[in-house]
Amino acid sequence: VHSSSNSFPEAFASAVIVAGGSGLRMEGAGSGVRKQYLRVGGVPVLLRAVLPFVRHPAVAEVIVVLPSDDVSAPPEWLLEQPLALVAGGAERSDSVWNGLQVVQEESEIVLIHDGARPLVSREVIDNVLRECRSTGAIPVIPVTDTIKEGESGLVSRTADRARLWRAQTPQGFPRKLLMQAYLRSRQEGWICTDDASVFEQAGIPVRMVAGAEENLKITRAIDLQFAELLAQGLRHR
Amino acid sequence: VHSSSNSFPEAFASAVIVAGGSGLRMEGAGSGVRKQYLRVGGVPVLLRAVLPFVRHPAVAEVIVVLPSDDVSAPPEWLLEQPLALVAGGAERSDSVWNGLQVVQEESEIVLIHDGARPLVSREVIDNVLRECRSTGAIPVIPVTDTIKEGESGLVSRTADRARLWRAQTPQGFPRKLLMQAYLRSRQEGWICTDDASVFEQAGIPVRMVAGAEENLKITRAIDLQFAELLAQGLRHR
Repeated sequence: VHSSSNSFPEAFASAVIVAGGSGLRMEGAGSGVRKQYLRVGGVPVLLRAVLPFVRHPAVAEVIVVLPSDDVSAPPEWLLEQPLALVAGGAERSDSVWNGLQVVQEESEIVLIHDGARPLVSREVIDNVLRECRSTGAIPVIPVTDTIKEGESGLVSRTADRARLWRAQTPQGFPRKLLMQAYLRSRQEGWICTDDASVFEQAGIPVRMVAGAEENLKITRAIDLQFAELLAQGLRHR
Repeated sequence: VHSSSNSFPEAFASAVIVAGGSGLRMEGAGSGVRKQYLRVGGVPVLLRAVLPFVRHPAVAEVIVVLPSDDVSAPPEWLLEQPLALVAGGAERSDSVWNGLQVVQEESEIVLIHDGARPLVSREVIDNVLRECRSTGAIPVIPVTDTIKEGESGLVSRTADRARLWRAQTPQGFPRKLLMQAYLRSRQEGWICTDDASVFEQAGIPVRMVAGAEENLKITRAIDLQFAELLAQGLRHR
């Protein structure tokens, strides 16, 4: 009953949703509540981040990485979904690594998604899935601000923003290549701000596909309110 | 009656507010109305952008660059303010240039501000004014997204975002240096996305000072709604 199931007739991917963060308090946004559990339009951010993958015909399993304290007593709205819950680690890369350990070997592709991106669309997921069968693929949006390069309070130059892109998630990778690259990253102690940089550092190409402006990451309290507005503007899926 | 007038006991600056854009329609945001005339919290975007300069003790004059069609019949709320109105040109740099032609020679400093940035604070203006007496100064905020460099759909590398900054306005410059650099820019046809890049290309240092997240530029229809939220969160000034 998935309207666009024809484009992905088989389930060949695992999704790892990363929500292992310590959940720093966001001022004015329900202090003490982890940000991934706060609500947008009445629905928890993390549940919104998870559902498009649970419902996607190409996704065979969804693995959610939670703060380790929460795995034994997860929020009720997560238990209602067909998910595997895994304990996160100290750093984001530790959480991803823990999630990767339980990915089934039958999966050809692994999608890694931020649990703090509640407005990811089916279209963005499909854009990634179409391009990550042989190499990495990430959704990006253009940089619209004028970007300055500089340090110590002095501009060194204006960047060519036509060559700059803001990376989003889900980021998709062939499972075997990802496991090899992540293992090497951990052995050699690479510092990576996203999963694609692990591929980049390993010398494996990463493709850029169309992301979406509304696929924002909830970081500050105001982002929750922005997400409310954006959610109102999106069609009900 | 300016609480912080002690830090700027004299008026030594001219402010040029650039709102010469053709005012492309923003979908769903009052089609046909120029974006700088749309309202945030009931107050026109351009009026919000202008008022902090009109009220600033260091600002001796405020020059507003309007679309050329509008100079003879400007919005009433602009006429109530002590402003000089100037007709804009085809490109943003033409509009700035037209504004610069009427800056009084007594001014030591010129501040150039986007008419589409309605939430500029007194603090950000002061940060710029303190650092632009001998060279250029611009407000910046950190880049928080992971930024990829790439082209033709392939990532070439992940940028070091600790060295990248998002440029805002007002940008402040010593008047004489600015006039010389802009003249040279026009003679040699430099392509610049902001006014500081004119200084950079002329080899004059530009300092970076603290901007503010809420000092956003209204570009898309959703930015108006973001600005509403941010305006609610700011103290009444």
